[in-house]
Amino acid sequence: MTAIYDCIIVGAGPAGLGAGLYTARDRQKTLLLDKFYPGGQINTTDRIENYPGYENISGPDLIATMVKQVKTFGAEIKTSAEVRKLHRRDDGLIEVSTAKDTFAARVVILSPGSSYRALGVPGEDRFRQAGTGVSYCGTCDAPFFRDKVVVAVGGGNTAIEDTLHLAKYAKKVYMVHRRQEFRATPVLVEELMAYVKKPGSNLELKLDAVVTDIQGGTKVERAILKNVKTDTIEEIACNGVFIFVGMVPNTAFLNGFADLTQQGFIRCDTAYLRTRVPGVFAAGDCRIGAAMQLITAVADGVNAAMWSKHYLRDAGWWNQPLSDALSPGEW
Amino acid sequence: MTAIYDCIIVGAGPAGLGAGLYTARDRQKTLLLDKFYPGGQINTTDRIENYPGYENISGPDLIATMVKQVKTFGAEIKTSAEVRKLHRRDDGLIEVSTAKDTFAARVVILSPGSSYRALGVPGEDRFRQAGTGVSYCGTCDAPFFRDKVVVAVGGGNTAIEDTLHLAKYAKKVYMVHRRQEFRATPVLVEELMAYVKKPGSNLELKLDAVVTDIQGGTKVERAILKNVKTDTIEEIACNGVFIFVGMVPNTAFLNGFADLTQQGFIRCDTAYLRTRVPGVFAAGDCRIGAAMQLITAVADGVNAAMWSKHYLRDAGWWNQPLSDALSPGEW
Repeated sequence: MTAIYDCIIVGAGPAGLGAGLYTARDRQKTLLLDKFYPGGQINTTDRIENYPGYENISGPDLIATMVKQVKTFGAEIKTSAEVRKLHRRDDGLIEVSTAKDTFAARVVILSPGSSYRALGVPGEDRFRQAGTGVSYCGTCDAPFFRDKVVVAVGGGNTAIEDTLHLAKYAKKVYMVHRRQEFRATPVLVEELMAYVKKPGSNLELKLDAVVTDIQGGTKVERAILKNVKTDTIEEIACNGVFIFVGMVPNTAFLNGFADLTQQGFIRCDTAYLRTRVPGVFAAGDCRIGAAMQLITAVADGVNAAMWSKHYLRDAGWWNQPLSDALSPGEW
Repeated sequence: MTAIYDCIIVGAGPAGLGAGLYTARDRQKTLLLDKFYPGGQINTTDRIENYPGYENISGPDLIATMVKQVKTFGAEIKTSAEVRKLHRRDDGLIEVSTAKDTFAARVVILSPGSSYRALGVPGEDRFRQAGTGVSYCGTCDAPFFRDKVVVAVGGGNTAIEDTLHLAKYAKKVYMVHRRQEFRATPVLVEELMAYVKKPGSNLELKLDAVVTDIQGGTKVERAILKNVKTDTIEEIACNGVFIFVGMVPNTAFLNGFADLTQQGFIRCDTAYLRTRVPGVFAAGDCRIGAAMQLITAVADGVNAAMWSKHYLRDAGWWNQPLSDALSPGEW
């Protein structure tokens, strides 16, 4: 017997928990599935300062409250339940299968999140807390490195954007990039170069270079750089290493079901978060156009839950074009 | 001398405070203007259960923390500063004028919010706290009326949707509507009628009727109804009155500047929140397509702040069509 739910949420990170709170409060029979346990990537963050409403909270503490909230309203959470396959049946129900079970629901909200791509060098995992020195998000963690020395790694758009952001806080930033050329958009590269060339600039480029090791005691104390052309080794004393080498959406299991970009992000309309499969929404860091912030992921889940009510009421709503977007007052 | 800012935020409610936290953390010189004081409509809410991260918090307490956060990062907040006029200069700076001052900024985020339309009957203001019995948001406050008797007023889409939601919690719901016919979309009216006609339904319609008075001691105890055709008076013992007669966006001052819907909501693209005026974003309950929830308003502000960086870097981005929406991985 396949257990049938009103709503199944795939991924119990911030987006999934936001969605679950709203579907459960709407008294929908709600199931959240997570391949590990609730929280996702934010569990590795010891200090959050940019979630409006908390001056300072740890990822695990924030998640614990969100989990309590969704459970209070009756949502069910299954941990160690990795979704392998989804399938929309002819009767409109969507089947969601893990290795062990198959569930079905009228609405599915996909919120599997994304993972930061790691450098894979010694020390990276050990210091993977902004508090001890390795971070993957400049927007989130730059203020913790006020007047400190940091190393930033990467050459894409986010790398440049977040490095410039870091430079607003840090005393000195070394930007390490494995090539001479940046693959980022020209306007960003120009902004970077102008900043680097300013007299007394606190930003210095280390090109044709890679970080091979992150070292320290209880906190990061130095990064080891290797020039890829000359094999020269350089040691840089620093308080932190920011790694900006990309995000990998956790969407491999959706291949052939949802419509994914080349990078694996789920395509959806950004107004209603509808994917190409009727009844299936995308929310959070897994989707195109996401701002990749904690609060925007949570709200994405809430939005998907709110819009799902339109679909439950009228399946034809799924194909309504965006130009007919309802203004709230008209609704 | 006109003081020049990087970003001016019009309205210091949840959306404005979300935006301000992010622009201030980005070290942009940020000014928030509010016609009264920070918080807006959420200040009148004594108990919030649907802000992920707080099981239960009052509106004023949540706002106090958000205010502290934006100030910590250097944003300036001016209270009793009602914006009268906006004007985009030929040099691209946007002038924002109150009765006393004119400021200018490279980016403006409009977050003036919306107000619930009031019935304007005796008792409405006195009990205007979900805790004492009058509420304007079924999605938010229905769970506080578990197994209670409530009166719901209105006949539009939101009225039906929120009344059906209320009926999932309340022991008994009386829905009061001033006409025989509902102006809501047919599919919703059908759902309502089916629910009302169910044997033993806990939802009863009071048509051709209006609420003329809300009475009680420290809490709501009864609503007085008048039949508009027969003038008959009826007294309904109840614990709460939900008023669903519309939202009025606080956007009159934007006439001739932003593009507004007939109801006054600001038109923008829902991906990037760009209005028709380059450099001017819309965020929160004032815009088309808003889910009208606290968390989605806050995240709207954050999204506007995040996207504003693209405009600051490259003004041409403003006219980029949505079909070219960058996926986060590509960015």
